[in-house]
Amino acid sequence: MRFDHVGIATRDADTLADLFGTLFDAPVAHRETFDGLDVTFLDLGNGYLELLEPLDDEGEGAIPRYLDREGPGIHHVALETPDVAAALDTAREHGVALVDETPRPGAWGHEVAFLHPKSTGGVLVEFVEH
Amino acid sequence: MRFDHVGIATRDADTLADLFGTLFDAPVAHRETFDGLDVTFLDLGNGYLELLEPLDDEGEGAIPRYLDREGPGIHHVALETPDVAAALDTAREHGVALVDETPRPGAWGHEVAFLHPKSTGGVLVEFVEH
Repeated sequence: MRFDHVGIATRDADTLADLFGTLFDAPVAHRETFDGLDVTFLDLGNGYLELLEPLDDEGEGAIPRYLDREGPGIHHVALETPDVAAALDTAREHGVALVDETPRPGAWGHEVAFLHPKSTGGVLVEFVEH
Repeated sequence: MRFDHVGIATRDADTLADLFGTLFDAPVAHRETFDGLDVTFLDLGNGYLELLEPLDDEGEGAIPRYLDREGPGIHHVALETPDVAAALDTAREHGVALVDETPRPGAWGHEVAFLHPKSTGGVLVEFVEH
């Protein structure tokens, strides 16, 4: 698997995209509204920073909950694989708890699935299939 | 800048390296003792996962403190630049608080410097010069 992106929870994607664009020379590669979130991908050449801002501060999703509990910051790391379903099978065989039992549509038209951090050293891992 | 690695704080790098090696097809690329830490880099082809385990659970460094406060998980994201000093100058010009005012030696013989997460949306960012 290869690095795909680091997901970052924020309440102000515009400001962060401007700052990171300047500091890291990381232009916006893609932006969309997905699953109640304003999602912005900043291009690092060999992967992305993904900014995740809730459209509704009172929303019920994972990112608003994370922001309430932890504040803004790094939320997950995403690894690219040609076959998310096979990667989930391997994880299941090794007793890893899954957030998503099967691949589901993610941002940017990708298929994605998350592993549960209780099985992976506290690290929330996303598999991404382009 | 390009993605270099995600730094992960752990109390059991051996187990995590084995698990991530299997799940992510990410073999150990480099391992060393540095600054009171057992540091393991897992190879993703286009970057690394860096496992950071304190040698001494009662140690005083940033990683033992982080583990006590937050538990194991993602600690920072590192971006590779050909000139950390110049990258720090740019950050300083934009009012970003710095953990390291000048580059310092990091693991694997690299020059590194950290930005303060209070200026970068709660994200602890490391610059790395190979």
